Amino acid sequence: MIESKLLFEDKIHEDDINTLYDALKQEENSGDVGYYNLPHDNAVEEIKAFCTDYDFEKRGIKNIAVLGIGGSSLGTKAIDALLEHGENRNDMNLIYFENVDPNEIVRNFQNLLFEETFFIVISKSGGTIETTSHLKFILHSFNIALESDAFKEHFVFITDENSPLDRFGADFGVKRFYIPLNVGGRFSVFTPVGLLPLHIVGYDIEKLLEGAGELRASFFAKEEDTLCKKALFYAKNHEEIPINVLFSYSSAFSYFNDWYVQLWGESLGKINIDGSKVGLTPIGIIGSVDQHSFLQLIIEGAGDKSVTMIKVKKFANDLVIPDISLPYLEKNDFINTHSFTELINAQCDATMQSIIDQNIPVDTIEIEKLDEKNAGYMIFYYELLTSLVGNLLRVNTYDQPGVELGKVILKKKFES
Amino acid sequence: MIESKLLFEDKIHEDDINTLYDALKQEENSGDVGYYNLPHDNAVEEIKAFCTDYDFEKRGIKNIAVLGIGGSSLGTKAIDALLEHGENRNDMNLIYFENVDPNEIVRNFQNLLFEETFFIVISKSGGTIETTSHLKFILHSFNIALESDAFKEHFVFITDENSPLDRFGADFGVKRFYIPLNVGGRFSVFTPVGLLPLHIVGYDIEKLLEGAGELRASFFAKEEDTLCKKALFYAKNHEEIPINVLFSYSSAFSYFNDWYVQLWGESLGKINIDGSKVGLTPIGIIGSVDQHSFLQLIIEGAGDKSVTMIKVKKFANDLVIPDISLPYLEKNDFINTHSFTELINAQCDATMQSIIDQNIPVDTIEIEKLDEKNAGYMIFYYELLTSLVGNLLRVNTYDQPGVELGKVILKKKFES
Repeated sequence: MIESKLLFEDKIHEDDINTLYDALKQEENSGDVGYYNLPHDNAVEEIKAFCTDYDFEKRGIKNIAVLGIGGSSLGTKAIDALLEHGENRNDMNLIYFENVDPNEIVRNFQNLLFEETFFIVISKSGGTIETTSHLKFILHSFNIALESDAFKEHFVFITDENSPLDRFGADFGVKRFYIPLNVGGRFSVFTPVGLLPLHIVGYDIEKLLEGAGELRASFFAKEEDTLCKKALFYAKNHEEIPINVLFSYSSAFSYFNDWYVQLWGESLGKINIDGSKVGLTPIGIIGSVDQHSFLQLIIEGAGDKSVTMIKVKKFANDLVIPDISLPYLEKNDFINTHSFTELINAQCDATMQSIIDQNIPVDTIEIEKLDEKNAGYMIFYYELLTSLVGNLLRVNTYDQPGVELGKVILKKKFES
Repeated sequence: MIESKLLFEDKIHEDDINTLYDALKQEENSGDVGYYNLPHDNAVEEIKAFCTDYDFEKRGIKNIAVLGIGGSSLGTKAIDALLEHGENRNDMNLIYFENVDPNEIVRNFQNLLFEETFFIVISKSGGTIETTSHLKFILHSFNIALESDAFKEHFVFITDENSPLDRFGADFGVKRFYIPLNVGGRFSVFTPVGLLPLHIVGYDIEKLLEGAGELRASFFAKEEDTLCKKALFYAKNHEEIPINVLFSYSSAFSYFNDWYVQLWGESLGKINIDGSKVGLTPIGIIGSVDQHSFLQLIIEGAGDKSVTMIKVKKFANDLVIPDISLPYLEKNDFINTHSFTELINAQCDATMQSIIDQNIPVDTIEIEKLDEKNAGYMIFYYELLTSLVGNLLRVNTYDQPGVELGKVILKKKFES
């Protein structure tokens, strides 16, 4: 169960909400934007059949190495961090080859035996420079020939159909999974990009999709209206309140924050249809840690931020603060015999109250517990919110033209 | 060697620079702000003597558990992440008890044997609720009586002299190290707060301090003027450019980013002397990863950001991209036989060029290599920059009044 509440005053017209619903419904119907209706085709069946057939346990696979960057890794990391304390996670290591920082590559190779490792190479375009470079380095380091059984048996590719990576895999008998052409990288976690690694490490991917599906149903049935109201508020105030803070009271959200930053920043920071540069800046922080870091700026800073507080009502573990009175520290005894869950959630409530007192717009998302269904819901919640705000800001939510120039300059540097 | 360059146009008067130098010199002379002259007294000698005497190896200590939050942990994490690939780092685990998320506490306890663990309890005020709660939980879990030798031998406290924690430690014979009263938590990494754990895990803390000291000398000798120019530019444009992005091309900077976010956000987000709410919002990102995430927003977003690009010229490890041509992926062969260091640094240059092309203010910091001296320089560089901008924004850079209300509300919640 997830409950979403807007605690700021909203003077929003019913007509605007209906127009917004209709715009999204139209976008979904058009078929141009594919994430609304994931999973595509029989993706889940294909993943499950592949894994049953492959039999990771029997082959002694202990490491899942994901070669991918940006949308190819952030969603998997986000969901794994949300759920890793739950009962379904098995003990396989998830290792990410993302950055081309050589120290990071060296660390990834520590104790990495080829025989124990299954490599998932992910690139939507099929030609990402970082991912290609990692793949070459891995093939070379383990001395794997493209024609070998080892290549076929330890690698899969996830990419667009007919991409260079797809064609390369086809020539050498490497299994490929596809990302639908109408699903962008940062919206692709419910394609094999996220579903394959998450299934391998033990999560119930059908429950993930069920959580997303329930929100889809209630949203398009116009039962969930906080999303539209929030989007209208953000868009209307995007010049005065250009920064949207996600303040989650659980360390499990640190990678969800990274995923949110990409989704929000890359989708909404655009030249819009009127030729204006617009954008909303995402910031993800963690409570209670960032009460000791970013909170001061929220409370007394320039008033340019909205804040969404995320609270987890039940943690997989709970622990009690013992009834010990430490000499001279008796002032903190009020928390004794309460649980750490009570403490962190009371901190969330107290901080929220202190932010509201400054007339800063706050909304809350209360999550019953961190499980697959709620993780799926949260992902889809932010995807929908992004589409709604993008529509109102009149940008193309789904492209990223601003990053192309750097790639061209990079190539020229090496060719000159 | 660290080289700092401003690539934006600065129409800054020499007089303004001199006024700013003088203001900081005055602040240093006043004795109200202690971080300029760290380390204090004989702090380094005290730390080294304690460690020699304690003999971690002989006692079989394998884990250093730091109980601390905010300024009590972020600096140590930042420096450890910058330097962990260097030659000095020993194999002791650094474990942080920061957040009161119960799942995080459970993870910290995995394989944690009391006999192998040395606990450093850090709280400037001596009464931080998170740190006190962790301490109680640890004492209870390992069944450690306050009167026991185990308590005296496995714990040290770092706090203000005469704080509740200091007095508690004194009563039970626990060794205490002090934070000077005129050094705030977020400026305290060059006190025992950072120096003790960093020395225990093998780093050359004298080199750290040497790096900071060199910058201090050249700054107050008015030889380093990019800091003043940058501060004047940020302060003058704080309304139009309220967001300062630190874009570092190495994964080693991820915790430095967190440290920067606290330092910048908590120091500058304030009601200033004129009663205005001011503040500059810090954002830390990592290249090349965040070229696939945040870059689009910088390039095509609302033009509300400055960008500092950090480049590391030599990495502890280097690796070459093998001369392999993968079928259909030949377009990426231009990078073959080049090193990953060349790739990541060329990406830095290319991205920087694409940002400059949008008339976004950019400056660069080039670091020869990640070693203690340069890490010390970088920490002190950002501390000085924070003081300079705080002076210009007319805020009290060193307090954090905005976070107190939440603490009061928290206590009331449990007392009612």
